[in-house]
Amino acid sequence: MKNLKYSLSKSSASPLYIQLFENIKADIISGRIPDGERLPSRRALAEDLKLSKNTVELAYHKLIDEGYAVARSRSGYYARRTSPINTDISEPDFYGNPGITYVMSQNGTDLGAVPTQALTKLRRDISYDNPELLGYGHKYGESSLRKAISHNLYDLHGITCTPDRIIIGAGIDYLLQQIGCVMGESAVFGFENPCFARSYVPIKNIAARTELINARMDSFPTDELKKSSINVMYVSADMHFPTGRRLSDRQRKELIDWAESAPDNYIIEADFDLDFAENPGYTLISKCPDKVIFLGTFYRSIAPAFSGAFLVLPDELKRVYDRRLPYYINLKSRLEQQVVAEFIKSGKYRSHTEKLRKLYKEKRSILKTALLDSPLAPHIKLHGADSGTYFIIEVKNGMSEQELKSAANRHGVKLIPLSACLIAMNDNMPPCSFILGFGELKKAAISEAAKRMIQAWTL
Amino acid sequence: MKNLKYSLSKSSASPLYIQLFENIKADIISGRIPDGERLPSRRALAEDLKLSKNTVELAYHKLIDEGYAVARSRSGYYARRTSPINTDISEPDFYGNPGITYVMSQNGTDLGAVPTQALTKLRRDISYDNPELLGYGHKYGESSLRKAISHNLYDLHGITCTPDRIIIGAGIDYLLQQIGCVMGESAVFGFENPCFARSYVPIKNIAARTELINARMDSFPTDELKKSSINVMYVSADMHFPTGRRLSDRQRKELIDWAESAPDNYIIEADFDLDFAENPGYTLISKCPDKVIFLGTFYRSIAPAFSGAFLVLPDELKRVYDRRLPYYINLKSRLEQQVVAEFIKSGKYRSHTEKLRKLYKEKRSILKTALLDSPLAPHIKLHGADSGTYFIIEVKNGMSEQELKSAANRHGVKLIPLSACLIAMNDNMPPCSFILGFGELKKAAISEAAKRMIQAWTL
Repeated sequence: MKNLKYSLSKSSASPLYIQLFENIKADIISGRIPDGERLPSRRALAEDLKLSKNTVELAYHKLIDEGYAVARSRSGYYARRTSPINTDISEPDFYGNPGITYVMSQNGTDLGAVPTQALTKLRRDISYDNPELLGYGHKYGESSLRKAISHNLYDLHGITCTPDRIIIGAGIDYLLQQIGCVMGESAVFGFENPCFARSYVPIKNIAARTELINARMDSFPTDELKKSSINVMYVSADMHFPTGRRLSDRQRKELIDWAESAPDNYIIEADFDLDFAENPGYTLISKCPDKVIFLGTFYRSIAPAFSGAFLVLPDELKRVYDRRLPYYINLKSRLEQQVVAEFIKSGKYRSHTEKLRKLYKEKRSILKTALLDSPLAPHIKLHGADSGTYFIIEVKNGMSEQELKSAANRHGVKLIPLSACLIAMNDNMPPCSFILGFGELKKAAISEAAKRMIQAWTL
Repeated sequence: MKNLKYSLSKSSASPLYIQLFENIKADIISGRIPDGERLPSRRALAEDLKLSKNTVELAYHKLIDEGYAVARSRSGYYARRTSPINTDISEPDFYGNPGITYVMSQNGTDLGAVPTQALTKLRRDISYDNPELLGYGHKYGESSLRKAISHNLYDLHGITCTPDRIIIGAGIDYLLQQIGCVMGESAVFGFENPCFARSYVPIKNIAARTELINARMDSFPTDELKKSSINVMYVSADMHFPTGRRLSDRQRKELIDWAESAPDNYIIEADFDLDFAENPGYTLISKCPDKVIFLGTFYRSIAPAFSGAFLVLPDELKRVYDRRLPYYINLKSRLEQQVVAEFIKSGKYRSHTEKLRKLYKEKRSILKTALLDSPLAPHIKLHGADSGTYFIIEVKNGMSEQELKSAANRHGVKLIPLSACLIAMNDNMPPCSFILGFGELKKAAISEAAKRMIQAWTL
């Protein structure tokens, strides 16, 4: 191994460890440090170059991270010239929004409101040292979490379900695909048009039969459902995406009647924000547990990174599930399941969702007030603005949808048009309408985004 | 709230907290403590009954756990008589084995060999306090882990793949279903019969077209493959499940030739234990990256609870993946991804898998020696016993398969017959053969299990 001699400058704009990293990287690329050669120990190099060991540590870490070195446990660091890792990951992320300051995303979550302290504390108490937690675990999820969810559904929504009807999975996509498999080839899955694409696409992707019925802004198209060949209808009774539509008690009853009208009819009830909804209506599953598959998540009530989701199955379907999916392995991190279970059992989940309800109510109010107290007021109509983390704004100021969208964009606000959620044409949907998601924006940012929309759209 | 008066006995066989729990539970069920009533604070009850606060804490925790109480944050504990949670989860687990002492499971992992200390340390360094980690994350997985896997594949197996071709998912089932979706409706997925059911069933379940070709104990049925309509063939070149068969270099070459013989032909290369295999052959992907989808996991090289798995896609399929699955959300715990990435980057994964290789070699040797040095030796033949955590034992002592299985069962040893893995008849498979999985058994247990099989089968 050669001695590495570099002259680094403390007065440079670039930190010492970056300078060191760049020097070593250049030597590895040029071959001055041969491929596979052992690099000096951190201590030796620090002494040689009169640097702190920490600086060398950081530089070596970056070399590993970018593929120019490899660590061998209890041996040291070795140069690596030809690693494939040197290519950067360049594909654009679905969630990337270059050049935009305010993203009115319907999926936005206020990450500042995540109860990190409580979660961190719970997580510290649950450790890998428990060999019980290292195995596969129960295929339907940790029994502690299934019990906690059962308790929670009862406590928050009056839903009575035994823990053995609950199945935990890593995400709604996967659970929906499992339902697709359980229902068998004769099932026809119904979705409203427009609907939540992340629920529709997984079912569509497994080549299950699907049928669309046209959504309405203020009611559920039960008449269309009855005329269709659908037997498994996906419904968000409390907050339909993207319209924000909420069903009346009468309409909920009609849906239940439909489900009960034929032995093979089922409802998938998916209201992901129910735990922090404003005055939610009754759940379909609470009235009709034998005909409703309930799909719940902790995406937004805890954090997206806890992408945990769960199903509550009718007894009969649970038996089919057992039979058709014998090899199912639960995919959700077992440790995170334990954390969520303890969070619920401690009563903190309930108070946290109450906090979220108030937070989003306040944010919603800021956005509504800003828009309705503006010169734009006579030209807009809000839909579904009494609950949730988004609502629909319909703009009637003479501009086209594309003009409205571009103008907002030029003002740094990214909006998703309601029409972009359409899978097929639907004349029930108002034109020039956009989803205003305010979940992830701070209060000040909501005011500012509103101001910019008003500027962009006031003629 | 009534005062709770119970007389608990320190000399009872039942711990104080259990006695307290039973008393309160009985009062809640009988209605002496009304449903919904607030229970005394832990401190007050501890003082009243002259118990430690800890004892009351444990009793309350058990009440919550079993559904007889509910905690409200910053308020206290409330009685709950009618919670649905009171029903136990009674369904048998797929992995349950009542009455059996030694399970020769092909999936067994030595949980004692999980590097819990290193993982716990890494996990402590990564915290929920980092808001970066609370969001959805990149849909294809943490870039740190994708880089680390790219590095690892190169370092351990000479596989060159850039991180942008790697997709991380929560489990092989889900990733295989995604491949099923990406390949489109015209694809015909090929599996050997028998094969790893947990790979076959997810593809089958999404109603993709599948075709089986009969496996052979000592070679790959390339001729059958060529005659079939399969265009996506699932292959375990190094260790076929359940036969333990390893392919020669020539046979690997034949498979690659087949893949290259038509534009739509692809291979899914799935050798889950490759990282700690004994003298593995070359990987198909390293010779033919444009035609091979590599499927890897950390199920056994780290721990089942880290049910992480990943795909390496050919460039062209990656583009199809981007197009067909735009809404895909990565399902693997982000924190656990970070932990695994750091574990790999530190060089510890490599030394850990080397340790696993030695451990399983030693275990394999104990089992082989015990069987081959026994009176049973003339009547048995071992298949695929040079690598892995299981091998096949073929018994020719005149007993039927059912007799062999029952005799082993009576001696407390659970065995899975090779025939149980068959999806259809296959005359290439030897009769009276069993999978001997020794992964999860301790060394002494392996000796004991071997002794019992010898006893059970020696006439």
